Amino acid sequence: MAEEAAVRAQAETVRKLKQDKADPDEIAKEVTKLLEMKAQLGGDEGKQKFVLKTPKGTRDFGPKEMAIRERAFKAIISCFKRHGAEVIDTPVFELKETLMGKYGEDSKLIYDLKDQGGELLSLRYDLTVPFARYLAMNKITNIKRYHIAKVYRRDNPAMTRGRYREFYQCDFDIAGQFDPMIPDAECLKIVHEILSDLQLGDFVIKVNDRRILDGMFAVCGVPDSKFRTICSSVDKLDKMPWEEVRSEMVGEKGLSPEAADRIGEYVQLHGGLDLIERLLQDPKLSQNKLAKEGLGDMKLLFEYLTLFGITEKISFDLSLARGLDYYTGVIFEAVLLQQDNEHVEESVSVGSVAGGGRYDGLVGMFDPKGRKVPCVGVSIGIERIFSILEQRLEASEEKVRTTETQVLVASAQKKLLEERLKLISELWDAGIKAEMLYKKNPKLLNQLQYCEDTGIPLVAIVGEQELKDGVVKLRIVATREEVNVRRESLVEEIRIRTSQC
Amino acid sequence: MAEEAAVRAQAETVRKLKQDKADPDEIAKEVTKLLEMKAQLGGDEGKQKFVLKTPKGTRDFGPKEMAIRERAFKAIISCFKRHGAEVIDTPVFELKETLMGKYGEDSKLIYDLKDQGGELLSLRYDLTVPFARYLAMNKITNIKRYHIAKVYRRDNPAMTRGRYREFYQCDFDIAGQFDPMIPDAECLKIVHEILSDLQLGDFVIKVNDRRILDGMFAVCGVPDSKFRTICSSVDKLDKMPWEEVRSEMVGEKGLSPEAADRIGEYVQLHGGLDLIERLLQDPKLSQNKLAKEGLGDMKLLFEYLTLFGITEKISFDLSLARGLDYYTGVIFEAVLLQQDNEHVEESVSVGSVAGGGRYDGLVGMFDPKGRKVPCVGVSIGIERIFSILEQRLEASEEKVRTTETQVLVASAQKKLLEERLKLISELWDAGIKAEMLYKKNPKLLNQLQYCEDTGIPLVAIVGEQELKDGVVKLRIVATREEVNVRRESLVEEIRIRTSQC
Repeated sequence: MAEEAAVRAQAETVRKLKQDKADPDEIAKEVTKLLEMKAQLGGDEGKQKFVLKTPKGTRDFGPKEMAIRERAFKAIISCFKRHGAEVIDTPVFELKETLMGKYGEDSKLIYDLKDQGGELLSLRYDLTVPFARYLAMNKITNIKRYHIAKVYRRDNPAMTRGRYREFYQCDFDIAGQFDPMIPDAECLKIVHEILSDLQLGDFVIKVNDRRILDGMFAVCGVPDSKFRTICSSVDKLDKMPWEEVRSEMVGEKGLSPEAADRIGEYVQLHGGLDLIERLLQDPKLSQNKLAKEGLGDMKLLFEYLTLFGITEKISFDLSLARGLDYYTGVIFEAVLLQQDNEHVEESVSVGSVAGGGRYDGLVGMFDPKGRKVPCVGVSIGIERIFSILEQRLEASEEKVRTTETQVLVASAQKKLLEERLKLISELWDAGIKAEMLYKKNPKLLNQLQYCEDTGIPLVAIVGEQELKDGVVKLRIVATREEVNVRRESLVEEIRIRTSQC
Repeated sequence: MAEEAAVRAQAETVRKLKQDKADPDEIAKEVTKLLEMKAQLGGDEGKQKFVLKTPKGTRDFGPKEMAIRERAFKAIISCFKRHGAEVIDTPVFELKETLMGKYGEDSKLIYDLKDQGGELLSLRYDLTVPFARYLAMNKITNIKRYHIAKVYRRDNPAMTRGRYREFYQCDFDIAGQFDPMIPDAECLKIVHEILSDLQLGDFVIKVNDRRILDGMFAVCGVPDSKFRTICSSVDKLDKMPWEEVRSEMVGEKGLSPEAADRIGEYVQLHGGLDLIERLLQDPKLSQNKLAKEGLGDMKLLFEYLTLFGITEKISFDLSLARGLDYYTGVIFEAVLLQQDNEHVEESVSVGSVAGGGRYDGLVGMFDPKGRKVPCVGVSIGIERIFSILEQRLEASEEKVRTTETQVLVASAQKKLLEERLKLISELWDAGIKAEMLYKKNPKLLNQLQYCEDTGIPLVAIVGEQELKDGVVKLRIVATREEVNVRRESLVEEIRIRTSQC
């Protein structure tokens, strides 16, 4: 075929341009042409020449997955609303410059859009930076809001463990100038409520403060200019042993071995109020202004958490660093613990499901006059939670309904399509969730089987005799019981028989 | 400052590279560097060097807009569920080749992602092509699903009229081999239900069929190769007068003036069953196989719509074309009518709020063996609906609550922060939606004012006397009534006083 030869020729053109390292724009143009030609050919022949997949690190959610996802969202949203949050939404992409300089070493993971003329755009990397941009742009100095939306990171996906390139974040943030640690404590309460509500098993919420970290770095002899990068290294302690982190600090990042060893002593500490008190007496740390402030606030935080009755699940942990550049105060991260069957005394971390902290400087970076709006917030990492809920559901053999249909409109004889259409239209108009098979003359057995398969509890059967008598035969699928219901009472009867609450 | 000089030097570098038309990749690299330097500078100085805006054609949704949006979604989702639909979700971007060759002349509006290594990706342009990809990929031949998500088009935005570059589509589709026009009729019923439910004013749903259009083109003497492009021209008839469309056909697209004039006669026809009957007798059209099939199905469709009782709002309109390449049968579009005050007899169209049609070939384009899955679906254009609801709400002065908080936990005296924290924690744990001010010693007046501003109906006031007596003072904001409630009955009392349903 002439068209196929043309496609081959075009493919050759593209190959050559790539080989010659030609202008990328020109290559892109020719690739586009090639794809168009292939698509044309595919369409004409009715055959496909595509790779049939979703992009790397992404996935579709089918009806069953969506049912699970909506359950988790429901629990999370009702918690956010219980705490009086409003809701906002922002575009999926931002001006590239809005995102620049906010994520430290992770900036390389940002998805950029192609320059097709006009503004340079990037997909959002989290919901926090767009929130700060929104506050500055609208001069909002006081808000409590949640935002549930997808964010994008060109990271190495690990899909079985719930790490994707496109994933949902469920964020709750409190912005405004308030008395210390009251909003911070509420954020931790929210994490505690959500993880308890979802029944994901045992968990611990690690807490630290950027000021304590910075103070610790200072007293350990880390030069100011290395604070951020050493902080990034400490952040890897949940995935790497100390020895590897130490050698990254000393080898790659040029920290003195003595400083690294001093850090090593601190980062293995974790505990509660007792540890805070001990560190407030620490001869070195207590001399550092930042660390002292941080420890004072940490003490206050623990007092509030005691009033909330949740300190049992909270661990003040000096190894918690969190990678993002924008945190300025309290930081925290919730991890699920997995009971190891053979060694019950040991519990293994299966990864972070929520995190957050205080970022008092971010909004000021967007404000023309640098006016700051203090913020603290929490982000629920829903994908890992989905993975757990999905696995659990698969193991349980619970059957998940993916529709809410109350009744199937069926017929027992042929030539009753018109009557079914009339009845179902009446039901829809009365707000009843109803379906019918899209066939002129479906077999009764197939109609009943459809109810079994999809969990529809009732069947409204029209037949010639019923039409004459002004009734509809209502069948209860679970019991196979059948009753004749007067047509004018049908809606009420369906409502009564399907009301759960 | 040295940093500022460095930024200026970098800006000059970028300017020069652009002037010299250098390798776009190199320019991009230097622009990135410039932005990073600017961001750094902005951060260091606490001043911002950014343009503070959302990308062109996009907008944020604040709490008030979200409240309106959620109302509209609720109406749409409950309609989709009433018709027994499951729900799915797909990634925001697809492989570029998945989208190629599906949108005809509109392909130029697709957003591409930058090639950062790996797959070539594009933002989805609609939800229909991803749906077809999903069906083929998972070998699904039978599903009724809805999908509500954002899509992206690099179009000229007209934001006041609700035309954005990022906008929501609410899609309902029925896939599977069924008896003719039953699912098609249901799609029209759904549009009718949603537009009635949202009370957007009078509307009309225009209906046509691609086969009737193609048959009409054939009998008017349009060459086969020009069907699609002439179809695109006809599609513009809702925005342009016939004379302009005609001159585009003859001038730009090289159609003979005679053919154009013949088309002109047909495209002014619109009506109901009577028009269908007349065209079935039309000496030219009735000789064309495609047109005859289309008209036969159109007649069947009108019979079903009569049983649904909605033909009053349906207009068979030969000027309706719809631009997208993938339609193969019935097509439709709903437009709102605006009553002109001075000339009541005339009603002016204010634009399309829903559209859809049958696309029997699209899934086959993705299937390795070209197996077809017939589909028909409808897409609700929610942005224009938002605009109308927003404008209406502004005019009505109705106050929209943006939170659901039932009670504010307040104190009448100082030093009661701990008691407020204890009480609010009890309420949250009991599922009550509660807030408190984040201050150690807030004034009672400020606390009551907060309730007025945000519409919180109840205040739970703790004071020293109440604590001694084991009660909480419950204040009803609207009436200023105050009652003492025993602490153990408080949750129940709040539930009773705030239960609406």
